[in-house]
Amino acid sequence: MKNRIAKLANWLEDEKVDFVFINSVTNIYYYTGFTCKPYERLVGLFVFSEADPIMVCPKLEEEQVKQSGWSYGIISYQDSEDPWSKIKESLDRERINPASYAIEESVLSYKRSLKLQGLFPSAFIVPLDEVINQERLIKSEQEVEAMIDSSRIAEYGIEVGIQALREGITEIELVAHIEYKQKKKGIRHMAAPPMALFGKNSGHPHGKPGLRKLEEGDFVMLDLGVILNGYCSDITRTFVYHRVSNHKKEIYETVLEANQKAIESCKPGMTIGEIDRISRKVITEAGYGDYYPHRVGHGIGLEGHEYPSLHQNNDNVLREGMTFTIEPGIYIPEIGGVRIEDEILVTKDGYKLLTQYPKKLQVI
Amino acid sequence: MKNRIAKLANWLEDEKVDFVFINSVTNIYYYTGFTCKPYERLVGLFVFSEADPIMVCPKLEEEQVKQSGWSYGIISYQDSEDPWSKIKESLDRERINPASYAIEESVLSYKRSLKLQGLFPSAFIVPLDEVINQERLIKSEQEVEAMIDSSRIAEYGIEVGIQALREGITEIELVAHIEYKQKKKGIRHMAAPPMALFGKNSGHPHGKPGLRKLEEGDFVMLDLGVILNGYCSDITRTFVYHRVSNHKKEIYETVLEANQKAIESCKPGMTIGEIDRISRKVITEAGYGDYYPHRVGHGIGLEGHEYPSLHQNNDNVLREGMTFTIEPGIYIPEIGGVRIEDEILVTKDGYKLLTQYPKKLQVI
Repeated sequence: MKNRIAKLANWLEDEKVDFVFINSVTNIYYYTGFTCKPYERLVGLFVFSEADPIMVCPKLEEEQVKQSGWSYGIISYQDSEDPWSKIKESLDRERINPASYAIEESVLSYKRSLKLQGLFPSAFIVPLDEVINQERLIKSEQEVEAMIDSSRIAEYGIEVGIQALREGITEIELVAHIEYKQKKKGIRHMAAPPMALFGKNSGHPHGKPGLRKLEEGDFVMLDLGVILNGYCSDITRTFVYHRVSNHKKEIYETVLEANQKAIESCKPGMTIGEIDRISRKVITEAGYGDYYPHRVGHGIGLEGHEYPSLHQNNDNVLREGMTFTIEPGIYIPEIGGVRIEDEILVTKDGYKLLTQYPKKLQVI
Repeated sequence: MKNRIAKLANWLEDEKVDFVFINSVTNIYYYTGFTCKPYERLVGLFVFSEADPIMVCPKLEEEQVKQSGWSYGIISYQDSEDPWSKIKESLDRERINPASYAIEESVLSYKRSLKLQGLFPSAFIVPLDEVINQERLIKSEQEVEAMIDSSRIAEYGIEVGIQALREGITEIELVAHIEYKQKKKGIRHMAAPPMALFGKNSGHPHGKPGLRKLEEGDFVMLDLGVILNGYCSDITRTFVYHRVSNHKKEIYETVLEANQKAIESCKPGMTIGEIDRISRKVITEAGYGDYYPHRVGHGIGLEGHEYPSLHQNNDNVLREGMTFTIEPGIYIPEIGGVRIEDEILVTKDGYKLLTQYPKKLQVI
């Protein structure tokens, strides 16, 4: 963490920016190891080019900040106090009078940006998002290990999910069962609410599990991931229950081919847009182009969905150490849908699959 | 929903503001009934003083917006398209050229505020938060009914939680069990991750459930709530396992008295600060003032924590139809903590408890 903060301080020095203010859950965790909910009661991190960093937190979390290993200064406040006045006092004491500062533009609320502007009305605001995106984009070996551990629990969720399938179980019961099993393993948070969709319900890419009961011939789409030691996993597998029509088999095989061809194209230097187009070409040529309404994937790491977005107009290229999902799908409202999603690490000369659950069509 | 939108349009007309842009999960739900995650892919609602409202959403959620009952216009976009250009085109077609517009300052990101400012560089920005806070502050009969239904499932969580207590169970196992039982009842989302803290762990108001095993003599603090039909619940009960020392009994009785006296003071016209001070007086006079480091409660409704904040310096007065928590606590790191939290509805001449789980000290 100290190393990461030092890199940020170097960036400040290089760019002649006086400080950064970090306010997002994930970036606070990335730079301090402290997990918090910074949006209702303010939690924030100041990193300066020429002074030690300072954390701001509610009085009732001060002990936890210290226990998390934070050894620098803390500005804490009671529920009845205004944190911004305490920040101002503290920065005045340190004689911080910035000409410019950097913020997470896509996370910091307009209101908090006004608070900072009120404290430093003549300072210039610099966007920080892309700087941190680029830092977080390339995962360290330890980060990749954490992601693999997280993926194993996601795969365990798929496994216990298919074991629990029986005629008449509802989507919501299945989801409750999967979560329970994962939480018994020590998981506290899902990366996103698990998705279990049966039959026609799987025909909506953003469907929500409900009271639909499992019937013979249904597609069963399971999309889930957990957070383990801060790192997210995300996997989707689709099965058929008891029997499969030729049409459904064709849909499945088309998506599988799109998934595999897109994955096989991953290596340093490849453009992101091209990966999306490779998956889209398979699906379009099979006649299902209109039923694939989303991008091929998204970055993953501290967040379930993070930078970059893998869509067809993204001209950035893959670099070693990037981690993202590949998840083409076909969704036909009257029939149902198939999505097959894996997590990929870009290696020196290709890729490594972080999710390894089998993908051959399974009739359960 | 149409009625709520009409009130907002009237406010626009009265204040001579041209439109509002709504981007938060809860306010989108409040005004449209549509549940979404609007932060990664943009979802938003424009309400105009003189034209029909318009929703913005990703192409892959357009069907769901329509199915949710939305009968006005929709601007939808693909992952590879820029939603802001599509918004600009659409508003240009409607000849919307605002002199001013209103945004949720505490939710809208600085970046999205810049996007709007880019579209309408000469328009004036008006704060919307307080306007919607005041609308949402007073709950309708239907909303109160939804909150009571939600509270019943929270209380069910307490019930199944104490039934599952046994020597050696971990906090995290207990949490998994409670969630599983609630989700089997059809709950999809917790209002917040359930908290189960044993022994010394309960001595931190924001403690996190972990691998601590239940031991004889422990405080068992359960703080949990669910989301049902959009509405949140939130309840805390604290128990002792097998035997209770006189000191722990005294702590419990002190918190209970603070909880009850604060609740009994609730009626229209009472100031919020005074309610906090009543609870604080009981705890301070018993000698535990330093161990009560938080406000007495918070608003609750579509959000688990919403406006208003019930802290000692809040001079606003209670009004009929307000709903909030009363949750004093005492936290002693070496011993553990007690919090007793209820949900209150302010009635015409007093209050109604929305949470009714018994509060007499239980040795389980």
